[in-house]
Amino acid sequence: MLSKALIKHVRSLELRKNRLAEGVFVAETPKVVGDLMEVMAPVRLVATEDWFSERGLEPGPMDAVATPGELARASFLKTPQRVLGIFPIPAPRLDPAALSGELCLALDGVQDPGNLGTMVRVADWFGISTVLCGEGTADAYGPKAVQATMGSLARVAIHRVDLGAVLGALPGGTPVYATALDGESIYGCDLEPRGVIVMGNEAGGVSEGVMSMATKRLLIPSFGKGGGADSLNVAIAAAVAIAEFRRRCL
Amino acid sequence: MLSKALIKHVRSLELRKNRLAEGVFVAETPKVVGDLMEVMAPVRLVATEDWFSERGLEPGPMDAVATPGELARASFLKTPQRVLGIFPIPAPRLDPAALSGELCLALDGVQDPGNLGTMVRVADWFGISTVLCGEGTADAYGPKAVQATMGSLARVAIHRVDLGAVLGALPGGTPVYATALDGESIYGCDLEPRGVIVMGNEAGGVSEGVMSMATKRLLIPSFGKGGGADSLNVAIAAAVAIAEFRRRCL
Repeated sequence: MLSKALIKHVRSLELRKNRLAEGVFVAETPKVVGDLMEVMAPVRLVATEDWFSERGLEPGPMDAVATPGELARASFLKTPQRVLGIFPIPAPRLDPAALSGELCLALDGVQDPGNLGTMVRVADWFGISTVLCGEGTADAYGPKAVQATMGSLARVAIHRVDLGAVLGALPGGTPVYATALDGESIYGCDLEPRGVIVMGNEAGGVSEGVMSMATKRLLIPSFGKGGGADSLNVAIAAAVAIAEFRRRCL
Repeated sequence: MLSKALIKHVRSLELRKNRLAEGVFVAETPKVVGDLMEVMAPVRLVATEDWFSERGLEPGPMDAVATPGELARASFLKTPQRVLGIFPIPAPRLDPAALSGELCLALDGVQDPGNLGTMVRVADWFGISTVLCGEGTADAYGPKAVQATMGSLARVAIHRVDLGAVLGALPGGTPVYATALDGESIYGCDLEPRGVIVMGNEAGGVSEGVMSMATKRLLIPSFGKGGGADSLNVAIAAAVAIAEFRRRCL
């Protein structure tokens, strides 16, 4: 039985200020909730009876068993799927010095939560475990972003940072790759298997301040004859770029 | 002045059956409408006065000048942008024999219109001018798909087909590449710069019937250590795969 107060509470977490005030976020679907439960304990689970029994779980004192209809009233999804969990927002520590040896992804003003979540999933697939979210970037813990990660939020550390400050604090010689339409073809230039790959805002690209800290500008070349698309979706561009870094290491 | 009847008409085109009955679709934003107008005449334009004057256009007898508020009532976008056009749905002819020499993209049950539209944009960027949409694939002319193409719908021919029949009609020796989680690493195998790249349903992948017609199964390898994401978003996978085909030709 789902109380009105609980439904209201879950739905209040659509707003970032409420998530921040409580330090929690909402995740949905057996896949996403299941992945998160492998790395952290939920504050509260709202699920159908069959989900609890399938997982061999007894609902705890904070949890609630819900009918599909009740779940639908709390859910942010068009097609709610049996379980919804409230999880603590992780607060991983960032050590810029440690970033220098691996590949990491930085988002400079990515506004669309779907793009953001998709890039976290891409990072996870390609073995990138750190994503830096600069100012103006959507919140990775909003419902749309969480669902787009498809559970990768459990395996990728998200850091909300002042991107300029973090890039400035990197050990000397750490490559900073910024994607740009006036960059060098990613297929024709040297790439180190480490450093920061910066993706910019959907409309405006990487900001001027961050761009000035890039050690190389990378372009994914277009193969369209005469015209063609003006640009790629930012998550698509991130994936194609990261794939090329990884391919070089094979 | 936008009549209630016109607003109702535009909004009725959200449904595929209405689009098919009239043979038209809706596109929005100056970018998408502008790209489409380069290749086809709109049936009707609904736009703000400043959009018409910026383009140096006189509203025709079918067109309507709208205030931003009126446009918002007709629009499918959260943030309507000055112009909305109704365009005829193109009906390009498909010649399977002609497909054999180039690279083309086939979608086998891609359900999400955003994924579909994003893949049309990716095709355009990478110089693929034919996209085959098999049964169970979303309609490329629905509002969400159209907007996700970002105008690439103007440059990419969309064919709604029986995918099995088209693949069966290809000239002998035409490669058919299907993406599959049990495929061969795309980075380790031979790729011809021609043939059909098949992307499958978001949850179920390429269907059995179509898979049986593939000449090669391709996998984008994961670089995650121990676990990692189970899969990539279908549009992301399409982009990484197509980029690799094009890179080989450099």
